[in-house]
Amino acid sequence: MDYTTYFQNHRESHLNELEELLSIPSISALSEHKSDVGKAAEWIADALRRAGMESVEIHPTEGHPIVYAEHLHAPGKPTVLVYGHYDVQPVDPLELWETPPFEPSIRDGKLYARGATDDKGQVFLHIKAVEAILKQEQKLPVNIKFCIEGEEEVTSPNLPGFLKANKEKLAADAVLISDTALLEPGKPAICIGLRGLCSLEVTVGTANTDLHSGTYGGGVSNSLHALVSLLASLHDEQGRVAVAGFYEGVHELTAAMREEFSKQQFNEDKLKADLGLDTLYGEEGYSFVERTGARPTLELNGVYGGFQGEGSKTVIPKEAHAKITCRLVGDQDPQDMLDKIERHLRNHLQPGAKLKIEQLEKARAFSCDSTNPMLQKAADAYEKVYGTRALFTLDGGSIPIVEQLSFVLSAPAVMMGFGLPDENLHAPNEHFNLENFDKGLLTIVEYLKSL
Amino acid sequence: MDYTTYFQNHRESHLNELEELLSIPSISALSEHKSDVGKAAEWIADALRRAGMESVEIHPTEGHPIVYAEHLHAPGKPTVLVYGHYDVQPVDPLELWETPPFEPSIRDGKLYARGATDDKGQVFLHIKAVEAILKQEQKLPVNIKFCIEGEEEVTSPNLPGFLKANKEKLAADAVLISDTALLEPGKPAICIGLRGLCSLEVTVGTANTDLHSGTYGGGVSNSLHALVSLLASLHDEQGRVAVAGFYEGVHELTAAMREEFSKQQFNEDKLKADLGLDTLYGEEGYSFVERTGARPTLELNGVYGGFQGEGSKTVIPKEAHAKITCRLVGDQDPQDMLDKIERHLRNHLQPGAKLKIEQLEKARAFSCDSTNPMLQKAADAYEKVYGTRALFTLDGGSIPIVEQLSFVLSAPAVMMGFGLPDENLHAPNEHFNLENFDKGLLTIVEYLKSL
Repeated sequence: MDYTTYFQNHRESHLNELEELLSIPSISALSEHKSDVGKAAEWIADALRRAGMESVEIHPTEGHPIVYAEHLHAPGKPTVLVYGHYDVQPVDPLELWETPPFEPSIRDGKLYARGATDDKGQVFLHIKAVEAILKQEQKLPVNIKFCIEGEEEVTSPNLPGFLKANKEKLAADAVLISDTALLEPGKPAICIGLRGLCSLEVTVGTANTDLHSGTYGGGVSNSLHALVSLLASLHDEQGRVAVAGFYEGVHELTAAMREEFSKQQFNEDKLKADLGLDTLYGEEGYSFVERTGARPTLELNGVYGGFQGEGSKTVIPKEAHAKITCRLVGDQDPQDMLDKIERHLRNHLQPGAKLKIEQLEKARAFSCDSTNPMLQKAADAYEKVYGTRALFTLDGGSIPIVEQLSFVLSAPAVMMGFGLPDENLHAPNEHFNLENFDKGLLTIVEYLKSL
Repeated sequence: MDYTTYFQNHRESHLNELEELLSIPSISALSEHKSDVGKAAEWIADALRRAGMESVEIHPTEGHPIVYAEHLHAPGKPTVLVYGHYDVQPVDPLELWETPPFEPSIRDGKLYARGATDDKGQVFLHIKAVEAILKQEQKLPVNIKFCIEGEEEVTSPNLPGFLKANKEKLAADAVLISDTALLEPGKPAICIGLRGLCSLEVTVGTANTDLHSGTYGGGVSNSLHALVSLLASLHDEQGRVAVAGFYEGVHELTAAMREEFSKQQFNEDKLKADLGLDTLYGEEGYSFVERTGARPTLELNGVYGGFQGEGSKTVIPKEAHAKITCRLVGDQDPQDMLDKIERHLRNHLQPGAKLKIEQLEKARAFSCDSTNPMLQKAADAYEKVYGTRALFTLDGGSIPIVEQLSFVLSAPAVMMGFGLPDENLHAPNEHFNLENFDKGLLTIVEYLKSL
């Protein structure tokens, strides 16, 4: 039977299987979920075995395990390495979820659950595409390897070591990754660039104990005052980052790139309406697509200190905290950036306050060449299924391991995304549009058969 | 026997009783502790009955109950109304307590527990002083009434109504209150002024959902950026409050007041050492005692938004929060002040952000005349027990009900405090120095007998 019919016939059982995977709370950032992350690895390995993949193994690491599998029975044909991740982001604030994050629920043609689109749902498409070809044709048109990790949401600390130690085993002509998004429903995109990332945690301390704001107020430093004034100094009034040297290494946009961006016909008014915003906000002189694809950022992801309960509490808190991440582009170096930010913070600290800075993740920006045939054939596959050729785009997010995969394996990264930009990845009510679930399966089959 | 011997003989049983009271987590600000607040009221009523007080009653209110008792068998003698509170502040951050806040523990002559000094320990002194006189002499030298409430830490919403409705019943020649502190060990003080208070809660909102900082970062407002820039605008670089008109109604310090303050010989170096601070911080041109006693403040008590867990999370949070209190002096009007702050916040909000402001508590500053004989006799009583005459001081804290008590009952407020300034009231590891527990009992007996 044709693949459209095959996937229609198996749709219910496929969705049931995916819901089983989405029910596992495999949050890699929270140590209390370590065993759940392990369960998700087992689930992926079992699914690969059921699909007909061979040499399936769960490779333990110092953190969460990596699942490997292969099917190498197409001599003379290219080898494709499918990369993805089965770990997910934390779920707070839990109260904003319409249905619990680990109790998958389908509403209006969308599957709601943490990890639905990022990235369990998209990894699942590759497993089922391979299974479909093997069931229908008893062989695969290419050699295929899977490398599915459990630490992508904590910037893959153990995968680079695994890649280097298993370079031969993982060797491939292309790394196939589905962890990005279409531009909008019906408008497919192949991501050829990702922003880099660096992150840090800042603690401002004042007295050695919390103090009564009546007895001491007005006479001693308040850690929250010191922190907010420090954090406010990181941006100027136009929203540009005020850290000295922040924009070094950024490549200014060429006319050609701006032209490529404009093809997306991105609708800023629709975005505003969708997000309930009166106005977008960012660097002067750039469109939303340019700001998020080609410009660096410094974002506060969390700020906290003092009393957060019901009512009020007259306290001067002894310490206050901030979590910060930067998105990097071009040749910006993550370590250099962290050092510049640290210098800025030390120079702008209020008298009487102490500063503790912890540098966390570091990943460079990534880009690849859209003229490579492995990428061009991906655009063709989209065209056959969606009726529209995929545009080559830059994505504002970071998948730090993509640069590593492409560099270590000397292979292009083919980022065929099947998510949508408004699917709340990393936020409450994450979901996956089932139209792209259906088309994604067909596009992957189409791509593998075209190679 | 003399009172010193009496209190020595009863010390162990008194401390056991107080520890029982301190074990009740009567946190008035948190609704889940409502029944505990009720239990503490019952405990106080029982203790007053055991002490020999009459007409003991627990008066229910819309919030937490008020405990009343009286002993009116000294015709021709003055009537003293003892006011205090049995509710306590919240206890977070819990992990900073050396022993659990509601498991009282004595170390180095100090009794550690939430409420030890503010105000259960001090209320307890009055109950035991009255009990001692009745046991020793079978009568009291004055008429005494008790009015002990359970909502002081949430600015006494129901006591003013109770006062007005029971003006006759509560009528007194002086209101006796122990909810303040000595200047330092061995240096007693009678507080003749308290700062007022107003408080508000601020929420800054941006998009209608949390967003991924990769996909959206640099292109939309971040509620945390908007909040920290807004909060930073509330103070200038010299630490003065930058809200227009903030200092209206403040009385500039006279030379006489500065002279009175200087008698305290307050040791700023010791304070710095105690708090682990290199430098104090506040308005230029004022000492610590002046800053905290006679100057207004605007303090951030809590700031929070976004991710606070372990590791990092690349999120742009949809909303961020701040809790703010001001301490007021002189003729500053709390409602006017809240309106000024609200105006400032609305004028300084970043484009693309929305603001929600909730005005909370409001209380004017209070002061009374130190030449009143009821106050002078209190200073004498301290001198007899401590060997040092009490200084008349201004306290930086707020007991909003003091102004109400004094105003409604047309009686001076005699604020005989037995706490110490470093006893961590409103903070982790609150405690009560037992030297002042012992001397407090004797001072109260001395005072009542002198009237």
